[in-house]
This record gives sequence, structure tokens and C-alpha cells, in this order.
Amino acid sequence: MEDGRADRPSGKPREKCGVVGVSLAERDAALPTYYALYALQHRGQESAGIVTHDGFQQHQHVEMGLVGDAFDQDDVDALRGSTAIGHVRYPTAGSVDKDCAQPFSVSFKGGALGLSHNGNLVNADEVRDDLAGAGHAFTSDGDTEVIAHDLARNLLESDLVRSVKHTMSRIHGSYALTIMHDDTVLGVRDPQGNRPLIIGELDDGYVLASESSAIDTLDGEIVRDVRPGELVVLHEDGSGFDSYQLVEAENTAHCFFEYVYFARPDSVIDEELVYEVRRDLGRELWAESGTETDVVMPVPDSGRAFASGYAEAASEDGAATEFAEGLMKNRYVGRTFIMPTQEARERAVRLKLNPIKSTVEGKTVTLIDDSIVRGTTSRQLVQLLKDVGAEEVHVRIGAPAIVAPCYMGIDMATREELIAGDQSVDGIAEEIGADSLSYLSTDAVSEAIGKSKDDLCLGCVTGEYPYDIDGEATDRDVERPTIEPPADD
Amino acid sequence: MEDGRADRPSGKPREKCGVVGVSLAERDAALPTYYALYALQHRGQESAGIVTHDGFQQHQHVEMGLVGDAFDQDDVDALRGSTAIGHVRYPTAGSVDKDCAQPFSVSFKGGALGLSHNGNLVNADEVRDDLAGAGHAFTSDGDTEVIAHDLARNLLESDLVRSVKHTMSRIHGSYALTIMHDDTVLGVRDPQGNRPLIIGELDDGYVLASESSAIDTLDGEIVRDVRPGELVVLHEDGSGFDSYQLVEAENTAHCFFEYVYFARPDSVIDEELVYEVRRDLGRELWAESGTETDVVMPVPDSGRAFASGYAEAASEDGAATEFAEGLMKNRYVGRTFIMPTQEARERAVRLKLNPIKSTVEGKTVTLIDDSIVRGTTSRQLVQLLKDVGAEEVHVRIGAPAIVAPCYMGIDMATREELIAGDQSVDGIAEEIGADSLSYLSTDAVSEAIGKSKDDLCLGCVTGEYPYDIDGEATDRDVERPTIEPPADD
Amino acid sequence: MEDGRADRPSGKPREKCGVVGVSLAERDAALPTYYALYALQHRGQESAGIVTHDGFQQHQHVEMGLVGDAFDQDDVDALRGSTAIGHVRYPTAGSVDKDCAQPFSVSFKGGALGLSHNGNLVNADEVRDDLAGAGHAFTSDGDTEVIAHDLARNLLESDLVRSVKHTMSRIHGSYALTIMHDDTVLGVRDPQGNRPLIIGELDDGYVLASESSAIDTLDGEIVRDVRPGELVVLHEDGSGFDSYQLVEAENTAHCFFEYVYFARPDSVIDEELVYEVRRDLGRELWAESGTETDVVMPVPDSGRAFASGYAEAASEDGAATEFAEGLMKNRYVGRTFIMPTQEARERAVRLKLNPIKSTVEGKTVTLIDDSIVRGTTSRQLVQLLKDVGAEEVHVRIGAPAIVAPCYMGIDMATREELIAGDQSVDGIAEEIGADSLSYLSTDAVSEAIGKSKDDLCLGCVTGEYPYDIDGEATDRDVERPTIEPPADD
Amino acid sequence: MEDGRADRPSGKPREKCGVVGVSLAERDAALPTYYALYALQHRGQESAGIVTHDGFQQHQHVEMGLVGDAFDQDDVDALRGSTAIGHVRYPTAGSVDKDCAQPFSVSFKGGALGLSHNGNLVNADEVRDDLAGAGHAFTSDGDTEVIAHDLARNLLESDLVRSVKHTMSRIHGSYALTIMHDDTVLGVRDPQGNRPLIIGELDDGYVLASESSAIDTLDGEIVRDVRPGELVVLHEDGSGFDSYQLVEAENTAHCFFEYVYFARPDSVIDEELVYEVRRDLGRELWAESGTETDVVMPVPDSGRAFASGYAEAASEDGAATEFAEGLMKNRYVGRTFIMPTQEARERAVRLKLNPIKSTVEGKTVTLIDDSIVRGTTSRQLVQLLKDVGAEEVHVRIGAPAIVAPCYMGIDMATREELIAGDQSVDGIAEEIGADSLSYLSTDAVSEAIGKSKDDLCLGCVTGEYPYDIDGEATDRDVERPTIEPPADD
Repeated sequence: MEDGRADRPSGKPREKCGVVGVSLAERDAALPTYYALYALQHRGQESAGIVTHDGFQQHQHVEMGLVGDAFDQDDVDALRGSTAIGHVRYPTAGSVDKDCAQPFSVSFKGGALGLSHNGNLVNADEVRDDLAGAGHAFTSDGDTEVIAHDLARNLLESDLVRSVKHTMSRIHGSYALTIMHDDTVLGVRDPQGNRPLIIGELDDGYVLASESSAIDTLDGEIVRDVRPGELVVLHEDGSGFDSYQLVEAENTAHCFFEYVYFARPDSVIDEELVYEVRRDLGRELWAESGTETDVVMPVPDSGRAFASGYAEAASEDGAATEFAEGLMKNRYVGRTFIMPTQEARERAVRLKLNPIKSTVEGKTVTLIDDSIVRGTTSRQLVQLLKDVGAEEVHVRIGAPAIVAPCYMGIDMATREELIAGDQSVDGIAEEIGADSLSYLSTDAVSEAIGKSKDDLCLGCVTGEYPYDIDGEATDRDVERPTIEPPADD
Repeated sequence: MEDGRADRPSGKPREKCGVVGVSLAERDAALPTYYALYALQHRGQESAGIVTHDGFQQHQHVEMGLVGDAFDQDDVDALRGSTAIGHVRYPTAGSVDKDCAQPFSVSFKGGALGLSHNGNLVNADEVRDDLAGAGHAFTSDGDTEVIAHDLARNLLESDLVRSVKHTMSRIHGSYALTIMHDDTVLGVRDPQGNRPLIIGELDDGYVLASESSAIDTLDGEIVRDVRPGELVVLHEDGSGFDSYQLVEAENTAHCFFEYVYFARPDSVIDEELVYEVRRDLGRELWAESGTETDVVMPVPDSGRAFASGYAEAASEDGAATEFAEGLMKNRYVGRTFIMPTQEARERAVRLKLNPIKSTVEGKTVTLIDDSIVRGTTSRQLVQLLKDVGAEEVHVRIGAPAIVAPCYMGIDMATREELIAGDQSVDGIAEEIGADSLSYLSTDAVSEAIGKSKDDLCLGCVTGEYPYDIDGEATDRDVERPTIEPPADD
Repeated sequence: MEDGRADRPSGKPREKCGVVGVSLAERDAALPTYYALYALQHRGQESAGIVTHDGFQQHQHVEMGLVGDAFDQDDVDALRGSTAIGHVRYPTAGSVDKDCAQPFSVSFKGGALGLSHNGNLVNADEVRDDLAGAGHAFTSDGDTEVIAHDLARNLLESDLVRSVKHTMSRIHGSYALTIMHDDTVLGVRDPQGNRPLIIGELDDGYVLASESSAIDTLDGEIVRDVRPGELVVLHEDGSGFDSYQLVEAENTAHCFFEYVYFARPDSVIDEELVYEVRRDLGRELWAESGTETDVVMPVPDSGRAFASGYAEAASEDGAATEFAEGLMKNRYVGRTFIMPTQEARERAVRLKLNPIKSTVEGKTVTLIDDSIVRGTTSRQLVQLLKDVGAEEVHVRIGAPAIVAPCYMGIDMATREELIAGDQSVDGIAEEIGADSLSYLSTDAVSEAIGKSKDDLCLGCVTGEYPYDIDGEATDRDVERPTIEPPADD
Repeated sequence: MEDGRADRPSGKPREKCGVVGVSLAERDAALPTYYALYALQHRGQESAGIVTHDGFQQHQHVEMGLVGDAFDQDDVDALRGSTAIGHVRYPTAGSVDKDCAQPFSVSFKGGALGLSHNGNLVNADEVRDDLAGAGHAFTSDGDTEVIAHDLARNLLESDLVRSVKHTMSRIHGSYALTIMHDDTVLGVRDPQGNRPLIIGELDDGYVLASESSAIDTLDGEIVRDVRPGELVVLHEDGSGFDSYQLVEAENTAHCFFEYVYFARPDSVIDEELVYEVRRDLGRELWAESGTETDVVMPVPDSGRAFASGYAEAASEDGAATEFAEGLMKNRYVGRTFIMPTQEARERAVRLKLNPIKSTVEGKTVTLIDDSIVRGTTSRQLVQLLKDVGAEEVHVRIGAPAIVAPCYMGIDMATREELIAGDQSVDGIAEEIGADSLSYLSTDAVSEAIGKSKDDLCLGCVTGEYPYDIDGEATDRDVERPTIEPPADD
């Protein structure tokens, strides 16, 4: 996938984040939370934060930067208490701002609240306006503060479960939340389960995390995914958890892009191992649009598992296509480098990826990647391979074409910037200079993930969304909050 | 006075600080608090902080450095709410640490607490041990956290006034506190009123501050000093305040050194204008030990008001002594400069003060300062004046000799470092090379301040303290907490 | 004087700087240079730098910030060699830029050149264009780089003295320079001696500095001022110096404002002690426009010496006017504080200066300062004194009214911003709310400084300049470079 | 390979660096140099620097940190001139110090010199002592300053080629240098060619770089490697270069470890493509010690090319061993993370690498890596694979065992820390818990690289060095400088 930074839409920044919650018997929870965030670093590099509670008071440490930079030993030591939540946040253009760093914490008359959010509300402005009308002052323009204020307000009048249910009845959109009210840690997933959240068991407690690899890092065991619409309340003493199925939705809307690109390959999400899904997508890709070329090579690292499945399937079909690592990645390409001229920008890809000439020269090549967003990098790569002697370059993408923005918390390009936004596959092939180009079908995606299309969010590849978004089509019978507010409210 | 930094004792750092509390009708309180801290900057340059409450939640911003550096416009804007407390802290050797920066805030099950402290407890370890035994974890080794935890604990079981009274019954030492519990701002002064705290009225609210100059800066009017042992509770709507005289002590123990050196000359403390006190001390100095020399000159800036009173009294007595600004101060001497060798250190005074040769050459000189701590600077200054041609140099000090450490929150030298710790005035005169040296008597201090010696803390000049300190003598019948805990506890 | 920062004109920043040059027998020159810069810190707080040469190679360390912050022990230790030059630079609005920090150093085919400049060229653009035409690339828009390139260019073709003379024949304006070519230290002053530069002798070498107080700090002896148009070459072994009178001008154009405001009171400039000049200006002020009021008080610290002379002369005349320090300065007012509203700006003066009510209430007051630039502060001060009860406030200024900008390196306001730019003294008095206002005459200035008006630069108070400036009048027969280029060039 | 940082010997830091030199017709050379350093970032992440010359003067910018962080657009723009050298430096423990950042530049009486060094001198102290005896003062303890001073000294007395030859006759050890004297760029490689240096041609000039991938990044063409003992002088106008074979050595001593680990796979070093060498080493590994297991998997990313060659050779031999990516790397593991306890350190590997359970469970596994240094990571990895169900774990290393330190500029562990320093392969297998362990023979290394063992430096795997090092054996007839100083010296 191309560098997401350049593809980011202007306008309100959206979040791709990782969340954690930990409740232990006696041990301080800060260090395990720190390691879990480390494991989720790929979900957000802008800021990292941990909030803990020691039974008496709340402690917090939130900083801009990577987990390893944001915390030193003293910072972690100061975070006393056996319960904690944590958060890593994705870098966004422009308003990179400490105000938006999470967990968001509120010290209010009902005690201490902390909240970590992954996802995106579609009615945040509406809820914010209601709360502002009731006298709430907001310090950021983020969704998270809106959820936190609504929940805190409810907590002044109701118990924890009812308060959460009440808040869920007001907010609409995608969310996986870890919450800490005083020393109680909660996990919540939106009614359609768009963003992942999983429960793990440790020797002396329980953990909630966006991905199972965080549980692995703590040498824990996967218990199960948090269910769509479920509230999980970890026991303060680490002895277990309670489950409250606050809402039931007919269908889920799991984000298929978590499998394609965003999650770690070693994570299990909604019971599917991401690595295997990617290899299966590669196999489907061969089945749907395989071409026998001299070599097949991934765009590292995102295309590797796809290419490996593709090559394997090709080999099983008796094709002579050889798998090769023909593009070498510069591991140190950072966030910023200087590109003063258009010419320099054209050449920038070579700072990141350099072809092994011997692998390419005089050969026909299939290049495999997981997605094309704006097409700039793909065009440069095809050109680069031809410059060093590739006779043909065929591009195969392990997902359908992205034709529309994501409103659920992944920071895609605007519709205008998307190369597939307004043209045919042939047009795109021509634009990137490929001898042929194929995407995968949504049927194949459904097949590889092992879930019905009705249970996936395919909004960015179909333009039809499983949530009710102003000005966009829906792919199902979506109605605003089907959640009944708690009876006694 | 010599540079306090070099004179600081090792061991637990003590605090010389400034505190502020503000409660307004509608306006955000952060900006007035910021200006008030600016006016109190001389009381602490290590860190600055403000905590506010907007009726729903608490906000805070605490940073190392000067007020002007610690806050920018956005920081102040984010501090919503019409109630606030603030703090500036004195730089201490070694463990300059963000953990000790104030206001200290606690987000606990009983809501949000913020606390700013000026002073020093003498039984902090005792109280801390009790609380630790009850399960409290501490993140700093400061007194303030101890007071905050004790108070928060009481608040879980009792009302505000009783909780403060209970805490006052446990802590012993000097303290002027501004406290914010949720959106209520309080001010407390220890039973003997060692540290100053004053109430001011603004157009739309009330303010508490260590010194009246902070009230001036806000164009407010002085109402009165907070009384020793009094709790003042500002109304949330800025309409007034309630007073609770929680303890009555027979005598006060106002710090005389606030008048001599620490407070701003334009502040009124316990009904005395500091500038006039200093001029009176200068007049007393002439009366007790005046010497007719060609010129009398202050060590700038600390000796100026003393020298002016001294010269005036001399002139009234018909002495031909001329007042002259013969030492020019380098306004940019900062905290640090390089002094690799002993020789360099000897010469360092000339980086700070340079004599005007024409004022000194061939003349007899009286040099006036407010105090001598270790004597290094005085010795260098006398030598410097002689080097440029002074025929005689007589040193007059507008306070008694400092012979013992301060346990009440001012960071003096250790007893061993004090030049007056173990020798006669003649010995000191010889050590600093002065042709004569005189200090002021404690009677004259009492006279100039207009308070009985029994109502002043003169510990550092008598070695007898008005508080019960392990291993030190007391100058009165001091008993540990005479404060009855509230009846129902 | 009002805070210069707010009065700074937009447009090209001008420099008010301090320069140093040191050549010793054996000792490393960096530490003495550091102390000398410390003594000259008032001349520039934006950046500090030292360049040394160890006989083989040049070393440099230039940083933004105060001298004490810009250098640590290691930095000074790394600056090997017994010759050095140094520089402190004034903070300028907007383009505070490391590129402009000095000394400027050039590593060119003719060796190593370092250059420190105080002053302002009036034909810098002209010379820069010539050099650019000859292939020189410039990295800053500063005058100093222009002088350095011109001199380096000359050094490739000629000897040191001829090269300097050649450069002097091309540049026109005010300059006091310390230069280091390889390990030779030079000092140069422009033909009219606008900016100060003085020679001092140490035990083991010689020093050049903008002000004599830097020599005092090193325990050195004043030798004499560098003469206008003179080149001084310090011997590499610290044994002495050679003098080359490269140009003779009929009259000098010493900046009178150095005496009034800019220089340290303890400095001797062109044989006059600044402190005495200021007291004499105060005496002249009484003589010209003395008014008997209850008290006379300085605006601290700038008005103190003036007020002292004024009060003394008043007393000699039998006036009952009492000298009082009625305004207390907040020593910690830094570069920045937040003033979000106009109202806040109006009140800002009270953050800096607070009146002692008892000194002012019910009294007639004379307020003494050295200058009025835009008038904002003066207006606020007069108002403040009246607010606390002054019956009358008479303002007396120890210099003529500033009516025009400075082109010689002092950063005044633009003509439009100057309160005296386009109105009468009465108009100004009204604008600042004073009961009366008087400035000093230029005759009195000439008298107090002890130099003919023809030998002073009075441009900013007369609008007639001793240099040839586009669009401005001259007060004498100024011709562009009267300096003959060296014969053999 | 394990994390080199933890394996670093104490004592004098050694350098693993990248060097660049560029000479163009007209274009500024800074930007291409910047891109070339970006491509060489893997050779050093501690600091980055560029020195340029514009024909008149030298410009430099050297900063700590990655290339992308060390330079912004303004920094590059300020580096005028069409000739440049650059440097990236490896992070070393403890004394990470700006003093050691390169290029090292000297502004001396003979002009401007800049120097970038990759390698390590074995007689630096000796040369330094000589120079110090001649009056040279050193600011760092690095080799580079020694070379620079020696060369500068020679340049005061001789021409460029003779000066370089003279310096080469004095220094002994490994070095690849890019040098800039005024605006002339040179490249030098030590007589045995230990460190790589290659010449590339651009459209408008020539470039020297440690690796060919830097030339690729500039869209340049490889010309040839700089020959051992050769001096290459780039023409100032970018039109070509001159070659001076200053020394002839019988054998080369190319570092074999560049091929095994250090260089980028897409670089060609001494005419061998690193990627192909690694695949060949993998094939040799199968040939020498192949074991048929269910899967073969690389330690990512270092073992990937080896494992690919190994699997391919296995497949050609009919083995059923499947290639799998069974270990997933956390791309965001940074330099620092908190590991407060021994237990945490044991588990640290899981922060970096997480197994795909499905790939491993119930299977026999061959794990391929390029080297084992201290063995800690290998032990943890084997344990990890067994924990998730691997039945057997066989470790195969694509290089011989490292038994001795490197003195040529690669920062290995001390002999005591090396796991292979004092025990048999069986002992190591037991220590890391592997079911079997095999290293590669030096013959196989020689075969894969295509160079005789006599032309390789195999010091770290044999303990016999091709340079004369105090206390170590040599593997050939090494004599100190066989280089004749230039005849006329």
C-alpha cells in the first residue's frame, strides 16, 4: 500500500488507533499495558498514553511519539495501580495535537474516568451540540471527548451498566472502547463490531486489546473476541469478567481492511488468523486473474503474504512462475524527507524501494500488492521495474479497488484522490503503465475471510456503507440507534 | 543577599513558593491566575502551574520553568472554568523534578482535588507513614502530596470544613494553602500564620494570594489577610467568601524574613508595607550602628531600600554621608555560568557587580545589605571596593545575623555553611575584610515590623523556633497540634 | 525606556550588538572571551558566539540564547587556542535566525576568517550586489557576511592591512568590528567612530571590547578607545598591538544614545563614564525644566541615575522635592507573556511596575525616564500613578525627543510609531496624560557628554544624520567613502 | 542477527559508517548527497552530516539523528556549491557525542578540509601522539580527526596527491574515505580494500559512495569499485575523475561480513551482488548441513535471503521442506524499551518477533539466520517456537561462528561475550536449546563470495587478522606500512 500520509484527506482527521485495558490481581498494570501498546504500535504512532488507578486515585501519562519514546522507566513506575487502559494514535496531517492524544481522562464529581477509542462516530457533532447545550465545555474536537462527557454525565445519575447502555443509545458509528471508571476497566464494541477488540487471560488477570498479538506479547491466552454490542466489565481483582449484551444487531460490519492491510499478520481477528487470510487472498487472486510470468514479486512488506499464496497456488497449477524478492526496502525511510521538486517526488520511490536488477532484467514480472490508493507509488514502481529491464509488468492487487472514502476510522484519501474513484481498471492500468492489472472480487474477499458479505463493511470498495452516513448510500437496512435507552431513564 | 542557590543545604529540598486561588462569577479564572502568578514569580522560578474546574471537570497545566515560558495562549485557553488555583515553586538543588511541581492534583472517588502549598511541615514523614500504612501510594516525597492525600481521605467521609479541620489537626508546621475541591476554592493558613496569605476583591470575584502585589496586578482591592488558623471558602459564584476560624493560637509566628528579603517591596503583609519596613530597618540601622563615611551605597537590588532609610536618617542627624549607587548590577547574570577554577569563582562577583570607580576611589564607604549567609560574596565585594581605591569599607546589615537554618520553608544554608554560625561579629568582619561590621538587633526588627518578638518567627537568627522541631530549641511553649479533630470523627 | 521589543520596526532587522577580541600569550582565550561576553550581555540576548584559533585550525561555537545558556564547560573547553573573537546579538522581531548569529566565519582558500560586527552599513546591498556579480553566494541577508566576503576576497590578493583598508573603502555606515584571520585578532572602528570599541590590557595579553566593563570583568586595565578609522592588530603572542590609522575624518559621530540608554552605567566610552553622564543629564534636566513637586521618582531601572542627578540638583537649589523609589519593578518579567485582549495590554504595565501607594498618594510627582519611544508605557504609568492617588504627574525625560529612526544599528521604532514623530511636546503631554512634560535640549546633551554636537550622532532626535542615507537629510558635509583604496590595488 | 546494540563492547567505540562524495558540473551537490546518505542510512543512524564548497568557501551541517531528521529544506538549501561529501555514523554506547559526528572539517591556513571515514585505524594513538608532539590539539578521540590533521599538515607543505600518499604511509588499518579539500572531492580506500567504496556516474557529474545502492537512488550508473590503495580525484567540474594507484598490496582483505549482514542486499560490492551472495550462502548451507524438516523459516529480515536459497536448494534436492514466514516482526521496535526485570528481558524477544502458531505447531522447524553473536536472542527464539508447539527446532547459520572481535570498524561483542568464543558448536546448540545447530564453513563463504580466502578479512571467524594488531594473530605476512612516503618529502 502506498504511503498513507500523502493520501490523507484534508478535513477532520480520522483515527486508526489501538486500545488496551488491563485488570490484575495485585501487580501494577502499567508495564503490561506498555508492552501491549508496543505490540499495537502499528495501529498508531502519533501518541501513546496510559491511565491507571490505584484504588484511591487516577494516574496518567500521555505523550506525543512512539511508545518507546513516550515512556521511560520513571514514567511507568509512577503509574501505580493494578488497573489500566492504554492507547496508541495514528499520525494525522496538520492538527497533530496533544489535545487529541488519548486515553482521554475526566476528573469529575463522580470520580475519575478514562477512555480509549478506536473508530469514528458519524453523529459526534449532534451529540456534542446536545452536551454543549447542557453546559459542557470541550477542549478538543475529537469523538472521544464527546463519548467521555456523555458517559460521565450518565454516571452522575445511574449505575455503570445503565450509563454505558445510555451512551450507546446516543452514539452512532464504529467504536471499540476501553474505559476505566475509578478502578473498573470496561470494554465495549459497537453493535456491528466494526473495529476489533479481544479478551485475553493472563496468569493473574485479564486484558482487552485491539489485536490478539498484544495478548501474545504478554504470554497470555486468547479468551474470545468481545461481541458486537457487548459490554465486558473486568473484575477489579483480576479474577474474571462479566458480560452484558447491551444490543443485538442482525448483521455485523467487520472491517475487511483490517485483514487486508491494517492488522498484524500474526493477529487473530474475529476468529481468523490475518496471515492465513492474506495467503488465501493471494490464492484467490491467482484463481481469478493469475498470469504466468517469469517471476512474481511482492511490494515489500505489505504484499508479501499475498504473493506467497499467489505463487503457491500458481505452482500447484504447474505454472513456472518463480517467487522472488526483487524489490529491496530501505528500512530507514522515515516520516520526512526533502523533495523540493516534482522531479524529486517522481523519483522518491527509489529512496524506499530499489530493484534487484538480476531478478528483473529481461523477465516478465507480476507485482503483487494489497491495495492501490492514489496510484502514484504503483506508477513509479512499474516504471522503475521497466527501467531496469523488466519486459512486462503485470500488477495484481489482493483486494477490490478502493472507490470511496472510509467513514469508520481509517484514513483513506478523498474520493477525488482515489485513482479508482472514477475510472475503469483498464484506465488505471494505463495510468500506472502496467501491461495488465487485476483486482480481487468482493466474493473472493468474503470467501477468504470466511464471512458473508452482509457481515463485512465493504464501504470503501462498494461505496455502500453499513452505517447511516449523510450523503452516502447504505448496503443494508440501517437505522439510527436501535438501542433502547435503559428503561428507568 | 548572596545568591541563594549556592547556599542551599543538601538534604530534603525545602520550598519557598507562591500560591494563588481565584473564584469568579462567570469569566474563566485561568488568565487572572496567570497574571497573579506572574506577580509572584520572585517566590519561585522552578515551575508554574494552574488547575481549574469548569463545574463539570478539572483541568490542569503544570510545567517546569518561569510562568511566561510554562504557559502559552492555548494552554491558558484550555483551562476552562471560573475557579482556579495556581502555584510557583522555588528552584531547589539536585532533585528539580516535575513530580514536585504544583498544584498537586488528585482525581479520586470523591471528585477532583487540587492543592498549592507554601511552607514546610515538620511532621510530614509521620503523616505519610500513617497514610502509607492505610494503603496510600505516593509518587513524590513532597509535603503537598501528604496533605492532599490526608484531605482527600477525609473528604470521602466528611464535609469540607470538617475535613480541613481534621487535616489541620494532623499536620504540624508552616503552611499557606490554596485548595480546590471540585469547583470550590479554599484558603488556609497555619495556626501561627508563618507564611503570608491575603484576600483580595475583584470586580467579579475574589482572589487569594501569597502577597498583595498579585492583587494589585489584577486591579483588585485588598480585603484583609487570611487569619492564622482560618479557613476561607470562596463562593463558587464569586459573590463572597465564608470564614471558619478553625484554630486559635495565643501567638503568631510571622516570618520576619519575608519583610527583610523575600517579599516584594510593594506588598503589604500582615498590614505592613514591606518597602516601609525596609526603610525603617535602614533607619534603625543608622540609629544602632551608624558610621559617618563619605558615601553609603547599597548592594543592589536587595540593599537599596535599607540604604535609602539609612542615608535619610544619617542626613537628618546632620551626617555628611552621601547616598550613591556605586555598584552596578549586571541584569543578565543568569542561573548558570562557567567557573572552572577556584580563581574564577573568586572573581565571579565581578560578573554580577562592578564598582563605579569615581564613586569609590579615595573614599570611605558604608556598604548596606539585607543579610550575609555564607559570606563569600561579601568578602569579594569588600575586596573589590578596596581594589578600586576605597579607603575604608564598613558593612551594615539590615537584619540580625543568621545563625541557624530555617525549617519553615525558606532554603537557607546549613548551620556549618553559615558564616555567623560559630563566630563573633568581629570574626566575621575580619573574614570578610571589612573595617567594621554591624548587624541589627532583634528589638529593632520587632520595632520596624511593628510586631512583638513573640509574634514573629526569628528562628534563623536566634536558633529558637516557634514550632516543635526535633533537635532544636523552641522560643515558646509549643505543643503539637492544639487542634481538636472535629467532634464527630 | 519602554520595552524595545514592542517598539521594533518591521522591515530589515537592525543590530545592537556587543563584540570582543582577545589575544593571549599562552592561555586559551575562550574563557576570558566568555566572561567578556557575559559583561556585554545587555547589548544582545538573541545569540552568543565565540570563534578561536589554535595556530593550526579555527574552532567555533555559536548558539541562540544568552551567553550562560549558549555555552557549557565542554563547549568552552573545545574552543582551543590563545586567540578569540566573540559576539552577542540583540533579539529582533520575526526572523530570529541562527544564520544571522555571529561571529560569522568563513573557511576559504586563504585560510580561516571570523568576524563580529556591531553597527549597520548603509550601502550593504550595493556591496552585496557587486560581490554576487563576482560569483559570491550569500547564506544570510546580514551586513556581516558582506564585510566578511569582501575582506576574504581581498585577502586572496593582498596583505592584511591593505585588505582591511580596501574593505573600508567600500563599506559605508557604522561599524565596530573584531576580526580574526587565522590566529591574528584585529579591531576596526568606522571613520566616524559611531559604535564604541575599547582596548584593554590583561596580565598576559590584550583585549578588545565594545565597553570597558568587559575589561573590568577580566580585571584588566583600560588602554584607550580604538580611534575612529583606526585598525588595531593584536600581536599573536599577547605582547602588544600595532595601530594603523587608515582613515582620518574631520568630525566624529559618536552615538549619544549609548550614553543615554544603551551602555552599562559603569562603562567608560570615549573617555566619559556613562554613569556620570547620566547624572549630569539629570542635573541639566533640573536646570532646564525642574519643577518642585513632593517627590521625584525614576522609572526603574533606566531613569535611576537621571533622577538621582535631578534630585541632587534640586536639593542644591533648595527645593523640597524628595527622591523616592515609588515604582517597584517585577524582576521576572520575561520576553513573553500572554495578553489576549486590548484591555490586557493596557494593563500590562502593572505586571512590570507597581506603585508604592504610600509614596504617591496625595502627592505631586515628577517621573523621570531616559526616553519615550511610542508612548504606550508612559501613558500607562501616568494613569497608574493617578489611579493610586497622585495629585499631579510631571514627566521629565533626560534626552531630546526621538523624532526619527536610527540607521546606525539601534532598533528604534518607525517614524510613524514614534510618539514625537509628528506632534508638539504639549500634544505628547496630553496623549500620555501628564500634567507637564519636558525633554532635554541637544545643547544640554552635548554639555553633559562633553563633546561638540558636531562630534555626536544625533540623527534620531534631529532627523539629520552624519551618514549619507537615501531619503534622509545630513547634518554635515557627508561624502561617500573618503577612504582611498590602497595604492597598489 | 541479534540486536547489535546490546552486544557492543565497552572501550573505544568503533565505527560502522557510510561515506559519500559528489562533484557536479553546476548543480548544488547537497541534495544528491542527502539522498545518497538516505540510501546508506542502514550503515549509521547516530548522526548525519554534509560538507559542501561553493568555490569560495566551505559550508557544513552535521547533526545527531537520522538523515531525515538531521536536515530540513533550509539546511540543504544553505549548503551551497557543486561539490560535497557526506557521512552517516553508527550509534555507539555511552559516548554518543556530537564531537565524533562527521564529516570532520578543518579550517586551516591551507584552506578548508572535510573528511568522512568508514573503518578503523589500528595505529591511531601512535599517529595522534606524533601530531600532539608537533603541537596539534585534538577535540575528539576519533580516528578521523587524526587523519584530517595529518593530511592538513601535509597540505601546508606538499601537493594533494603527495599529501594523501604521505598520510597513507603513516596510517594503518581499514579505511574508505571521502575527502574534500577546498572544492576538490577525493576518494581513498586502504591498501587491502577492507571497507567498500564505489564510483558512480550521473548525468552531470560523479559520485563516490560506500554502496552502489546510493548510486541507484540517484539514477546513476556504476562505474567501478575504487581499487584498494587507490586515490580517486573527482574533477571539480563533474567531467570525470583521475586515478592514482598509490599503493599495491599483494592480497586484498575485503570484509566478508559486509556480504553476510551489513550491506544492503541490493548493493553490488567488489563486483558481487549482495542478495545473490546471501542466496548462495543459503544454498551452501543446505549443501553442507541441510536437514529435512516440515518447514524452514528465516529470522526476519536478516535471514530471509539465506532461507530462500536454502529452501530452493532443498527443493531441488527433492526435500519436502516448505518455506514459511513463521515469525512476524514488529516493525516499530525502536531503540529503547523498558525492561525492568530479568524476566522482562527474557521475554523481550516477543516484543520483536511473534510466531504464527499455525505455521509451527506440531511441526519440525529449521530456523535460518545470518549469525549468532551473544546467543540471547537465538535461545529466546528457539524457546518461543517450542512454546507454541514446534516439535523440533534446528538452527542453521549462513556464516561461520564468530569467535573473535573485529578491529576493522564493525562493532562486535568482546571475546568474552561471544557465545562461540570458547565452546564447541554442540555446546552452543545446547545453550540455545536447539535440536541441532550448524554454521557454514569458511570455504563455503569464499565460494559464495567468489573470492579466495586470502583476499577476504575473516578475522572475526578465525581470530587471525590481515592487519597487524597488538596481541592478535595475523593470517598473512602483514607488515606495517609498505607505503613509501612520496619521494620528495
